[in-house]
Amino acid sequence: MESVEGSVGIVSPQDFISEEPFTFLNGESISNLTIRYETYGSLNEAKDNGILICHALSGDHHCAGFHEDAKKPGWWDNIIGPGKPIDTEKYFVISSNCLGGCQGTTGPASIDPSTSEPYNLKFPRLTIADMVKAQKLLLDHLGISTLHAAIGGSMGGMQAMQWMIQYPEIPQKVLILASTARQSTQAIAFNEVGRTAIHQDPAWHHGNYTKEKPPATGLSIARMMAHITYLSNRGLETKFGRDRRKQDPGHLTDVEFEVESYLRYQGQSFVNRFDANTYLYFSKALDTFDLYGPENDLTQAFKEVQAKVLAIGFTSDWLFPPEENQQIIQALLKLGKKASYAEIESELGHDSFLLESEHYFNTVRAFLEIK
Amino acid sequence: MESVEGSVGIVSPQDFISEEPFTFLNGESISNLTIRYETYGSLNEAKDNGILICHALSGDHHCAGFHEDAKKPGWWDNIIGPGKPIDTEKYFVISSNCLGGCQGTTGPASIDPSTSEPYNLKFPRLTIADMVKAQKLLLDHLGISTLHAAIGGSMGGMQAMQWMIQYPEIPQKVLILASTARQSTQAIAFNEVGRTAIHQDPAWHHGNYTKEKPPATGLSIARMMAHITYLSNRGLETKFGRDRRKQDPGHLTDVEFEVESYLRYQGQSFVNRFDANTYLYFSKALDTFDLYGPENDLTQAFKEVQAKVLAIGFTSDWLFPPEENQQIIQALLKLGKKASYAEIESELGHDSFLLESEHYFNTVRAFLEIK
Repeated sequence: MESVEGSVGIVSPQDFISEEPFTFLNGESISNLTIRYETYGSLNEAKDNGILICHALSGDHHCAGFHEDAKKPGWWDNIIGPGKPIDTEKYFVISSNCLGGCQGTTGPASIDPSTSEPYNLKFPRLTIADMVKAQKLLLDHLGISTLHAAIGGSMGGMQAMQWMIQYPEIPQKVLILASTARQSTQAIAFNEVGRTAIHQDPAWHHGNYTKEKPPATGLSIARMMAHITYLSNRGLETKFGRDRRKQDPGHLTDVEFEVESYLRYQGQSFVNRFDANTYLYFSKALDTFDLYGPENDLTQAFKEVQAKVLAIGFTSDWLFPPEENQQIIQALLKLGKKASYAEIESELGHDSFLLESEHYFNTVRAFLEIK
Repeated sequence: MESVEGSVGIVSPQDFISEEPFTFLNGESISNLTIRYETYGSLNEAKDNGILICHALSGDHHCAGFHEDAKKPGWWDNIIGPGKPIDTEKYFVISSNCLGGCQGTTGPASIDPSTSEPYNLKFPRLTIADMVKAQKLLLDHLGISTLHAAIGGSMGGMQAMQWMIQYPEIPQKVLILASTARQSTQAIAFNEVGRTAIHQDPAWHHGNYTKEKPPATGLSIARMMAHITYLSNRGLETKFGRDRRKQDPGHLTDVEFEVESYLRYQGQSFVNRFDANTYLYFSKALDTFDLYGPENDLTQAFKEVQAKVLAIGFTSDWLFPPEENQQIIQALLKLGKKASYAEIESELGHDSFLLESEHYFNTVRAFLEIK
């Protein structure tokens, strides 16, 4: 596997365990913060070639290369690796599971040392700013005080934006993909349906379910619905159209159309890898993200920004549409910051930021290389 | 109430009970078809001034005037009444609850006389063509063999289209609002999530629930999600923005944003008036509606059409977008039929067809009046 061209090869996650209590924005704290992360490439002597990858709601720290014996690479392997746009021959890539997550970093399913039980809903309310604060501890641990770039799509884009606000001296560049400075009403509405599906699942038990009996139905419904919002009508038409699984329509609740089968698979497989309480916390972190603030003025949030910023919108993304990405750049330009916007033609909806396209990849490469 | 200007006043539903068995497209039949309906205005001597109103998924026969002691009028009272665009001084308006419905017409919750139990999932698989066939029986009963018009929005638009295909000599005009000749992949996908929420609700019991213990959670989630698809991002921004219900975010599953409160209310109130099995049957009737057919040629379906047709698309409707309405007219024009398309500017999404707007109402009035 090590020889796969353009691949970082076999990778292993590491855990950073903070010795200090971690205090959230709302004042609550936890005492045992663990951050699971991976790195690819080498940190240079100046320690300034780091690129932080921030993941989206359903993502994790494993974004490139292969875990031992795994068939599938990390979720962003197409863009990260030797010679790829996020070039591990040049950059030291750092990717961590977000605070509140369920893939190794402390989250609701982790054991609260004060009770020896999982936190579940006793886990503190979480914001994008808290996620970024936790990532900062990891960088401190790695001895990094300057990042070449912070990069993220969707919820990851919110983190990247938050980085340039919260620690303006650290990221030299910020790359925001298919994201928004403020969760829209419609996006809140969809998240609320997903949350309702979870907390109305009898197996949820006010968050106190066991790993063996999670609210699988609710989480699966939340995922099925959310998955539609990550795609586009045209993309779905192209991929599935009205293709039928079988000619006989069968029972009223049987799978009839291919798109139904696809969605059910998406829902079921998500349940195997994701924690329902993390879904509640992450979706709330998204919904409460609002850089416009009470004065409805995005420039207030961006006053101290030092990074060069590129935001990329994707034409068919209706969850975080191109305009919302463009508005980020307009606010930065109003302040005289170095910022630019690119729009990529794609019929793949919000998930376009995960897909390979020449124009897109060239744009990312060029942005990371410019002085 | 009788004196309310432009109102048809107090109205009462009637039941038509067919003496013949009713056979569905798939060959199955039921023996006790009841159709609940209302009429407004008077049938003229020539019996050719009838306008048939076809309702959408969550609608019913009560579309104008007030039921005794009711505070709210029928669902389309703004457009139907003396002097209104669908003018009850000129036209005899007929509106029935669709076959398979849950508001008086025979549907899954009705008693199967052969078992004295509700049909539930033994109710035959239902198509738009079956709904129209049942409406035809009602017209026969009323002695009507020519309709001035068949009108419907959304699923009602599918019925109106089906009328001009199935009984081309009956409707002189057909008015299709916010509809489609073929359910899109995305629309199927959303319906599948709603169906999954219902059939995964433990209270559903394979359709054999009691009226007292319906799958309220599943139906409510289906409705919440569907309701988002009836609106638009911009419409939601205008109506709710990020307004908060209370400043303290509270518990992770508490209502925080106004839009969440609105959606929960929509979900809960729907459960009080709608049957979950009807939702399954209607949503499947929508999903299997495809006038393009296996040869992907809409003109084949429209060959025998005699009616004058107007289709209206609404700019912000992303469920049945303007293009899909326009395509209906393009196919008719290709065949040399009398057809036209109008597009109404609105930020209210799919539900725009239910709302009052001068341009829209004038367009409807003019179409019904032209010779």
